Amino acid sequence: MIQLQVRTSGRQSFEDITSQVQQAVSQSGVQEGLCHLFCPHTTAGLTVNENWDPSVQHDMGLALDDLVPQRRDFRHSEGNSPAHVKSSLVGASQTLFVDGGRLVLGSWQGIYLAEFDGPRTRKVLVKVVTA
Amino acid sequence: MIQLQVRTSGRQSFEDITSQVQQAVSQSGVQEGLCHLFCPHTTAGLTVNENWDPSVQHDMGLALDDLVPQRRDFRHSEGNSPAHVKSSLVGASQTLFVDGGRLVLGSWQGIYLAEFDGPRTRKVLVKVVTA
Amino acid sequence: MIQLQVRTSGRQSFEDITSQVQQAVSQSGVQEGLCHLFCPHTTAGLTVNENWDPSVQHDMGLALDDLVPQRRDFRHSEGNSPAHVKSSLVGASQTLFVDGGRLVLGSWQGIYLAEFDGPRTRKVLVKVVTA
Repeated sequence: MIQLQVRTSGRQSFEDITSQVQQAVSQSGVQEGLCHLFCPHTTAGLTVNENWDPSVQHDMGLALDDLVPQRRDFRHSEGNSPAHVKSSLVGASQTLFVDGGRLVLGSWQGIYLAEFDGPRTRKVLVKVVTA
Repeated sequence: MIQLQVRTSGRQSFEDITSQVQQAVSQSGVQEGLCHLFCPHTTAGLTVNENWDPSVQHDMGLALDDLVPQRRDFRHSEGNSPAHVKSSLVGASQTLFVDGGRLVLGSWQGIYLAEFDGPRTRKVLVKVVTA
Repeated sequence: MIQLQVRTSGRQSFEDITSQVQQAVSQSGVQEGLCHLFCPHTTAGLTVNENWDPSVQHDMGLALDDLVPQRRDFRHSEGNSPAHVKSSLVGASQTLFVDGGRLVLGSWQGIYLAEFDGPRTRKVLVKVVTA
């Protein structure tokens, strides 16, 4: 199990961690297999989406803020309930394929830590297995 | 493959199954590996979120009801279309890490069966593998 | 790693790929294990939901269009930002169980490629492992 550290840049931001994850895959020496990722935080998540045009991350942020607005009848005293809900919507785990020692990703795909209550320093756990 | 049974408590509720899943991990004898979970239902799901303040589950319920309201033009005759949509939003599978015979979870994380059309008795499938 | 091809039928559609995935499981010869699926596209995803009443897919489409409407302040020039957001909401990967050479699914569950920016020909990657 490898632990990545990710410094997030805003209240809500999408941090491209593809090269850090690829580095973990390379370190593992696994040629054919699976790369499991887990985010041990309840106000962040992991998602795979476009890494070509940064506008996609901008628009994702707008859409998620629309999806889960703040409400006066939320009870959680920390005031970050929308961040918890967004975390469950994008999810805490991802499983990727490894082929020839490289992550298998579509032409436009990158792996993102989705921060919903930052900025903070976050962890991402990585386990690469032969399969 | 181990099968858990979970009695859900409301139309929509979030049942903390962390200790049941940990028990399955302990029974498996796996020290280092992965714990795969699968929910074989189309109006429930699995999610990882805060297990410290129960207000988070309360607020999650409010937000999800807002996200997917009932509509007059829904066609599914059982009337539970919002439950189906919520199930796809939180997802049916989760993959967790196991280290030293224990589930690896963040300080505030628990594993939840998310019920969207209860109360019912639900199943959760667990497979723990050395990896 | 097996690669499936899926022809999608609409701008937004849910294509039942259960039998194609089962065929990949059968070809693998794996009796007990896991079936990992990955969608290498940023405007499509994979989800498990009801495959009995097609109205559920109809209603899912209505609800997702409501969830992520087009906005004038989206910046992504291709105009398909809602499709990117929906892709992150349903997710790119799924992990299923295999028992006795068969996918383990609930009575009403099927596996769907969720198309959000079609019609197109999409790929789904499948890896079946003994576990």
